[in-house]
Amino acid sequence: MDFIQQSSGYLSRIETGIDALLPSADTRPAMIHDAMLYSMKAGGKRLRPTLVLAAAEMAGAGLDALPAAIAIECLHTYSLIHDDMPCVDNSDLRRGRPTSHRKYGEALALLAGDALLTEAFRILGQSYGASPSTGYALVKTLSSAASSAALIGGQVEDVIGEGRAISKSDLDFIHLNKTAALITAALEMGLLHASPAEDDLATIRKAGRAMGLAFQIVDDILDATSDAASMGKTVGRDAELGKNTYVKFYGIEASRRRVQELTDETVGALNRWGARADYLKALALDMAGRVR
Amino acid sequence: MDFIQQSSGYLSRIETGIDALLPSADTRPAMIHDAMLYSMKAGGKRLRPTLVLAAAEMAGAGLDALPAAIAIECLHTYSLIHDDMPCVDNSDLRRGRPTSHRKYGEALALLAGDALLTEAFRILGQSYGASPSTGYALVKTLSSAASSAALIGGQVEDVIGEGRAISKSDLDFIHLNKTAALITAALEMGLLHASPAEDDLATIRKAGRAMGLAFQIVDDILDATSDAASMGKTVGRDAELGKNTYVKFYGIEASRRRVQELTDETVGALNRWGARADYLKALALDMAGRVR
Repeated sequence: MDFIQQSSGYLSRIETGIDALLPSADTRPAMIHDAMLYSMKAGGKRLRPTLVLAAAEMAGAGLDALPAAIAIECLHTYSLIHDDMPCVDNSDLRRGRPTSHRKYGEALALLAGDALLTEAFRILGQSYGASPSTGYALVKTLSSAASSAALIGGQVEDVIGEGRAISKSDLDFIHLNKTAALITAALEMGLLHASPAEDDLATIRKAGRAMGLAFQIVDDILDATSDAASMGKTVGRDAELGKNTYVKFYGIEASRRRVQELTDETVGALNRWGARADYLKALALDMAGRVR
Repeated sequence: MDFIQQSSGYLSRIETGIDALLPSADTRPAMIHDAMLYSMKAGGKRLRPTLVLAAAEMAGAGLDALPAAIAIECLHTYSLIHDDMPCVDNSDLRRGRPTSHRKYGEALALLAGDALLTEAFRILGQSYGASPSTGYALVKTLSSAASSAALIGGQVEDVIGEGRAISKSDLDFIHLNKTAALITAALEMGLLHASPAEDDLATIRKAGRAMGLAFQIVDDILDATSDAASMGKTVGRDAELGKNTYVKFYGIEASRRRVQELTDETVGALNRWGARADYLKALALDMAGRVR
């Protein structure tokens, strides 16, 4: 099966999983469930859930990793809803559609974000009754990556650093936490479905760190060079908000070279799994060359 | 040991647990950890964590229930921070101090709420390595009570019902979900530390439901009859916001009678545990008579 086919297989499992695992849009109160699904079903690359599914498959998991994949997508989606809000980035457009607060108002967007963050853990809490120790390990990994010292911590430094001079090491802190932490958690959560050895986990974390940093740098490059129509979201916002991006610090060319180095690192770490890692290696290369 | 002594013992364990289990205020980024602790250390009744500890003790738990107690207080505190925000209740005062967004600004209050919600699951995910199946059951119970179909669902109907005519059954939906769900979860989480039988869980859920409804009705009564100085928060907001309260529907006297009935129900359910339930029974009576 080639890369495109395999990607589309994962995507279709993910879309099915969203419908199967989240409360339906008519669950009381319908308004909040409608808002949750509006943001969850807006498409997007589905990178994090794809990483969960692909890592589980690479590791030869005996357990179905779909609930973990949907959980991490809920978590990622909550962070987008809250980041878009007027008091943070004040974005009107996400994935080619009005952001949650533009469509539902601020109060409901706030609550829909809260609900998707909670839903991530509810799905984990409901789906691993047959293997509670796996479920527990998944909660530990996801909650830690999403915490105030990781995902939220990166977001905080990103917001308070806007328009201010920060150091290169501060920029690394932001990228490592705002983006790489959750991408690393996705790969790790996939592996957890196959009772991994500690060495496997350490290696996948290396791959996730490099892949996550590359992804964020590509995002910074695209925000600086692309247009709203092809990105499906407001672009040029980084410069407008005075955000500290990799591009701002190092320029476009050095940023592109860094993406290449990080992609090599990712592939190097994934070689531990030989041919079973072919899909994830192809994904890392694809991400490095993505145009949106 | 009498009721006051036992309460103060729980309170002091809870304060110690907050310091021990949450990241310290100087953890990077310090600003978010400071904001999290500002809201967590504002005092308050500590009802939910006290219920966790007391229920665990009543059931003869072999495992320390303190992490679950702190987790549910993190969850409760996040819900207060977000409810106070300008786009929801727009409250300036909470527990006698400026609300989070008044002190830290909206963006940081939003993120501090997100961080405490996440922290609830991080603490559960970190603390039950010796008994992952208990940890997993705790996640299941807490995430379900906090979800869009429970806590958040109640909050949503409360907000969208403001200033509108709703039915008595809608009011029940709001109270059951906005308040009783988490109080029930607190009691259940305490019991989970003692490998409870399904009958025990069903009985404690009955007690929690009645206790939670009584608590919310007392809150409504106090909002209508008390003053800001003794409550430590903005009062009279319910009427101002056009909130649908028990008092608005049934009046003060009928509300007081209902509190009494519900307290009797709570005590009746707790009798299953005989003298071991003495503390929780005293707490139910105390809550029914509370003045703030």
